[in-house]
Amino acid sequence: MQVDHLIQARWIIPVEPASVIYENYSLVIDDGKIIDLLDNAEALQKYQPQTLERLEQHVLIPGLINCHTHAAMSLLSGIADDLPLMDWLQNHIWPAEQKWVSEAFVRDGTDLAIAEMIRGGTTCLNDMYFFPEVAAQQAIAHGIRANIGLIVFDFPTVWAENADVYLTKGLALHERLRHESLITTSFAPHAPYTVSDEPLAKMLTFANELDLSIHMHLHETQHEVDEQKQKTAQTPLQRMHDLGLLSPAFMGVHMTQLSKQEIEFYAGTGAHIIHCPESNLKLASGFCPVAACLDAGINVALGTDGAASNNDQDMLAEMRVAALLAKGVSGRANAVPAMQALQMATINGAKALGLDHKIGSLTIGKAADVVAIDLSEVETQPVFNPLTQIVYAASRNQVSDVWVAGKRLLNKRQLTTLDLNDLRERAAVWQQRLASS
Amino acid sequence: MQVDHLIQARWIIPVEPASVIYENYSLVIDDGKIIDLLDNAEALQKYQPQTLERLEQHVLIPGLINCHTHAAMSLLSGIADDLPLMDWLQNHIWPAEQKWVSEAFVRDGTDLAIAEMIRGGTTCLNDMYFFPEVAAQQAIAHGIRANIGLIVFDFPTVWAENADVYLTKGLALHERLRHESLITTSFAPHAPYTVSDEPLAKMLTFANELDLSIHMHLHETQHEVDEQKQKTAQTPLQRMHDLGLLSPAFMGVHMTQLSKQEIEFYAGTGAHIIHCPESNLKLASGFCPVAACLDAGINVALGTDGAASNNDQDMLAEMRVAALLAKGVSGRANAVPAMQALQMATINGAKALGLDHKIGSLTIGKAADVVAIDLSEVETQPVFNPLTQIVYAASRNQVSDVWVAGKRLLNKRQLTTLDLNDLRERAAVWQQRLASS
Repeated sequence: MQVDHLIQARWIIPVEPASVIYENYSLVIDDGKIIDLLDNAEALQKYQPQTLERLEQHVLIPGLINCHTHAAMSLLSGIADDLPLMDWLQNHIWPAEQKWVSEAFVRDGTDLAIAEMIRGGTTCLNDMYFFPEVAAQQAIAHGIRANIGLIVFDFPTVWAENADVYLTKGLALHERLRHESLITTSFAPHAPYTVSDEPLAKMLTFANELDLSIHMHLHETQHEVDEQKQKTAQTPLQRMHDLGLLSPAFMGVHMTQLSKQEIEFYAGTGAHIIHCPESNLKLASGFCPVAACLDAGINVALGTDGAASNNDQDMLAEMRVAALLAKGVSGRANAVPAMQALQMATINGAKALGLDHKIGSLTIGKAADVVAIDLSEVETQPVFNPLTQIVYAASRNQVSDVWVAGKRLLNKRQLTTLDLNDLRERAAVWQQRLASS
Repeated sequence: MQVDHLIQARWIIPVEPASVIYENYSLVIDDGKIIDLLDNAEALQKYQPQTLERLEQHVLIPGLINCHTHAAMSLLSGIADDLPLMDWLQNHIWPAEQKWVSEAFVRDGTDLAIAEMIRGGTTCLNDMYFFPEVAAQQAIAHGIRANIGLIVFDFPTVWAENADVYLTKGLALHERLRHESLITTSFAPHAPYTVSDEPLAKMLTFANELDLSIHMHLHETQHEVDEQKQKTAQTPLQRMHDLGLLSPAFMGVHMTQLSKQEIEFYAGTGAHIIHCPESNLKLASGFCPVAACLDAGINVALGTDGAASNNDQDMLAEMRVAALLAKGVSGRANAVPAMQALQMATINGAKALGLDHKIGSLTIGKAADVVAIDLSEVETQPVFNPLTQIVYAASRNQVSDVWVAGKRLLNKRQLTTLDLNDLRERAAVWQQRLASS
């Protein structure tokens, strides 16, 4: 049988089923999809591929899914560090954004982030930022999969003047993007403290009609919870529940402030948690009780958050920190073992986005979103277990090849849809503008 | 003036003084030492170097000091993961060590670790393992600086049959290594639960006579503290103090179990803390209260611990996790800001080892232990602040060049004293042996 691509790898970790690591195995891609997984010898008998790739020191995993980011903020990486969330937001990030964010800023920042993501094995991002039409356009242009947040705030920003305009623009964008194969959309109300009840209720009506999920910062800090309690005698979680937002179509990002009762309650709603451990640590926001949430049956996925609070878009590192931190916070060294960490970075992200029928594991019938990691570097030798070497030892520069929907976006460390020198030049221009302001 | 090397860099962060970042600056090396730091134009007028290196996108920092490792355990990276300390030690690591550790194992494992360390910007390691004479010999052979632990246990291991033999062999080794310019030695009693009072008292007498420091795991877990309390109604900290061990010549490794009173007390002794955040998280040992310890005036340095509990020897990542975790644990986003994190990974390590007159900062008169990091990769663009990009965003593969005592050990990513293929082959042989046992 003629097929597009055949990749022979030393190891394949399909993630589904969870307990399996194939050795000397082949992944067969045709028409952008995974059509077979089988023994190397058998594969060469059964298939005549247009391209054959032998990755003898490599492990194939599903593409990593960065379930929460503000991609364009890569241009702000390092502009303000070592500050608490509200000081960082109100005195540094928001003023810089108000002054500088534009279509051009979002185009260049998103490109910079996409380059970093592809080079680090991320094949899908869940974005929340201004000018989402530009982020969508750049994702399409560079071949990466994206869930684009239709952002909502109460207050005017560079992109819209009030909540109604955000919603109207968001709906129009959703309509324009509906038929893009790499793109989905969610409503992305920024946070409980920046969006009031009326626009949230309107948004929910639209979300239900259009079957769109909701992507929102929630319980990021104690301050957020306390402030809400003072205003309405509710926690933000209660308020979102009262408004009807919490459901399997809801992604709560951060969730560092959660009691045992709240964990049980949240599990009952079927809503997802997007855990951003590096951002939570850097802004001292608190610890998401990841192991307890997973034990309660909550689907927990991973995100880097924007580069201004991280300061990178490195999902391998985020997965490692998530696996390590969950052990520290729970006090159990067997909490979030390596496979569960890899699930959080892949299939759990797909579930949160409602895309697990399509991505998140190397399964026959799913899109060929595939990452190859070279374990032959001395940093990951010897290999007793390719899974734990990926989670606990490999660096992003060991990501050798990346395919999204069967298209090769990284070819032996070379980006195929972005030019590094061009990116560096554009980043330098923004750096000069911002630094001089 | 004729000199050996002149390195022109886009930025130089000398660490001492702490507030300085030089731009377009030169570091001048002669006879293994830093003899000048000055403006590029001035440097070329004043010096005629044998080699001139222009690093136009790079930042120079002092070599990273890995203040706690078991280098040879790199051969055990990934052999047992997601397990608590005592299960991991007693049922996996110790049996494997008892069966396999030999001079050849330590030679090959130490080489593997040294290669990883040099490639990641580490120029000095503080080692604790069996066959320390082999670790010393390999460090000398490959040109890396090392403080070699003269290990002590009560019980027999492959290296010695009882505490007296450990001490005798250790003293002999100290004597043999005294005149090696890259090598220093410390006594390294393993832990309170593996070394009893009598050998500790003997060791202390020798340490005082010979002016040697002491390197010991201490308060690593709650279990360790509880067990000691049950046996002697003391904490391990009290016991070590009663024995007279705590002084500016003592490095307590881990220190995850510390009350406010104990922090104050420990600060008063002048002893150092070696913080190993990734190992502490992975084994769920607890959180070292780093910010509180630093605030109390304790010198806190960083180590990776052995690769079996980490699972790498990546000091840039360790520094990042330390900076992030300290914020999370203290609840203050301004705790351990980037410069303090870099100090922990450099000058604080030098202080802990009693070597701050010689290494730990890019200071005229100190040894030329220097690391260049290339910030031109898209992952670290734009550069608002080279310091925070190093601490929060750069990966170890951006370490381009490394010098120890003026000798270039990494030249544009190429190791000059180790062969990668040879290392891979040796690691594979051990992997096969261990996996088959």
